[in-house]
Amino acid sequence: MSRSVGESAGFNVHSVVVTGANQGIGLGLVKQVVGKLNPLEWDFGTSQNPEGAQQLKNLVSRHPNLVIIALEATDPASIKAAAARVEEHLKGSGLNLLINNAAIGNNGTLESETPENMSLVYTTNVTGPLLVSQAFLPLLKKAAQGSNQKGLSCSKAAIVNMSSEGGSIQNVFIWHLGQAIAYRCSKAALNMLTKCQSLGYGGDGILSIAVHPGWVQTDMGSFTVGTLLGEAPLTVDASVRGILNVLPTLSEKDNGAFMSWEGKVLPW
Amino acid sequence: MSRSVGESAGFNVHSVVVTGANQGIGLGLVKQVVGKLNPLEWDFGTSQNPEGAQQLKNLVSRHPNLVIIALEATDPASIKAAAARVEEHLKGSGLNLLINNAAIGNNGTLESETPENMSLVYTTNVTGPLLVSQAFLPLLKKAAQGSNQKGLSCSKAAIVNMSSEGGSIQNVFIWHLGQAIAYRCSKAALNMLTKCQSLGYGGDGILSIAVHPGWVQTDMGSFTVGTLLGEAPLTVDASVRGILNVLPTLSEKDNGAFMSWEGKVLPW
Repeated sequence: MSRSVGESAGFNVHSVVVTGANQGIGLGLVKQVVGKLNPLEWDFGTSQNPEGAQQLKNLVSRHPNLVIIALEATDPASIKAAAARVEEHLKGSGLNLLINNAAIGNNGTLESETPENMSLVYTTNVTGPLLVSQAFLPLLKKAAQGSNQKGLSCSKAAIVNMSSEGGSIQNVFIWHLGQAIAYRCSKAALNMLTKCQSLGYGGDGILSIAVHPGWVQTDMGSFTVGTLLGEAPLTVDASVRGILNVLPTLSEKDNGAFMSWEGKVLPW
Repeated sequence: MSRSVGESAGFNVHSVVVTGANQGIGLGLVKQVVGKLNPLEWDFGTSQNPEGAQQLKNLVSRHPNLVIIALEATDPASIKAAAARVEEHLKGSGLNLLINNAAIGNNGTLESETPENMSLVYTTNVTGPLLVSQAFLPLLKKAAQGSNQKGLSCSKAAIVNMSSEGGSIQNVFIWHLGQAIAYRCSKAALNMLTKCQSLGYGGDGILSIAVHPGWVQTDMGSFTVGTLLGEAPLTVDASVRGILNVLPTLSEKDNGAFMSWEGKVLPW
């Protein structure tokens, strides 16, 4: 895991979609992907509100292969429109890599968690990735069909669902810092969705994986567990560097796994 | 596991709530609990629509310690009203056993699953048990506080969440018969909720467990996987007999586990 981003000869990605790219890990992914991977033709960063995504907009001015796309992960019409826009840009090519990163979280307890919050978090963190994957499936299939690589890989066609060790039922990561019930339940469900996608889409040449980005210094990494920002041990850059080192190493045997930014398989 | 129901000296349950008791496993649980366990004072069976729960009503005429309570698991006001009614009947005693059994399922695929169905299944199967547990928590705590038993047990105070091996991310039970995406995701999330409840409520003397009832000859056992009723291998009676044999054997070491009707620990 000491390779730098893009060093792997196997990571031959032409196009990437990252949802929730206006901040945090999503923005970090777009930055490193657009800056370092070759031969990258298109890096699509989605945002609920592209006008407010200032850092993403600043990146666009320097990187003509980065496109900002409006996508609201709880709105099926917005998801379909985003997929149509990506398809236009791809001009007949497929999409190699879909990173379902958009997510929300807060720190509700067993006693304070509300039905409204349970619904909102699930809709964003689980139904969102399901619908986004449905909408981009034809483009992922096209990439897989157009590839001469054998087996499965992130260079060919892959769905990467940004999960969390908070979704590990076995480990119950940093419970002492925050119960985050709606968030934990949603990430366990997202892990199940990932496993189902691996079974359903593996035959189409699409790899599916759930990734734990580490406990990262983002708004979510602090607010979800109710701690101060500085307490999260990982910077966004380090987390994203780790993830982009792990993705090129994935193959058929990793399909449907739950893996950390360091490439460690995590228990469900 | 060859003991018959109620034989265990350790199963000293005075009061039980079973949600979704109008049919299937819920009805089977109420029947066996009210007929065989001693010393049972109150068996509360909840139903969305008590007027339509004919089999449950027939049981009431023979068992004065059975009470039918209206409870709609997706409606917080209905849940609170049900808890208030149970509290009235208990006349100052606590509730030993809450069985969150009410659930729905169907057989949506990765490509056909809709946001509406994802929401409805999650609200019923995960948010429902969360809210029902919140509402009955004071009565469960009262039972735990009033007990002179050490450690945790179903006789003292327990939350039993009826899960499914369909919620096992590791096993992905009978995938070849049906993808049932919303259902599988909801049961993985319910398993996480159970684990969280075990951590949050263990200190209050309340045991929490997720139970897989087997693949049972119920409407859900057939419709969820899109097969004919007769294909499910277990009768309701056999499943419920198994569950009621397992519950009395549970102790502190089982808190937060995922267990089958045969007492086998299942992987997350």
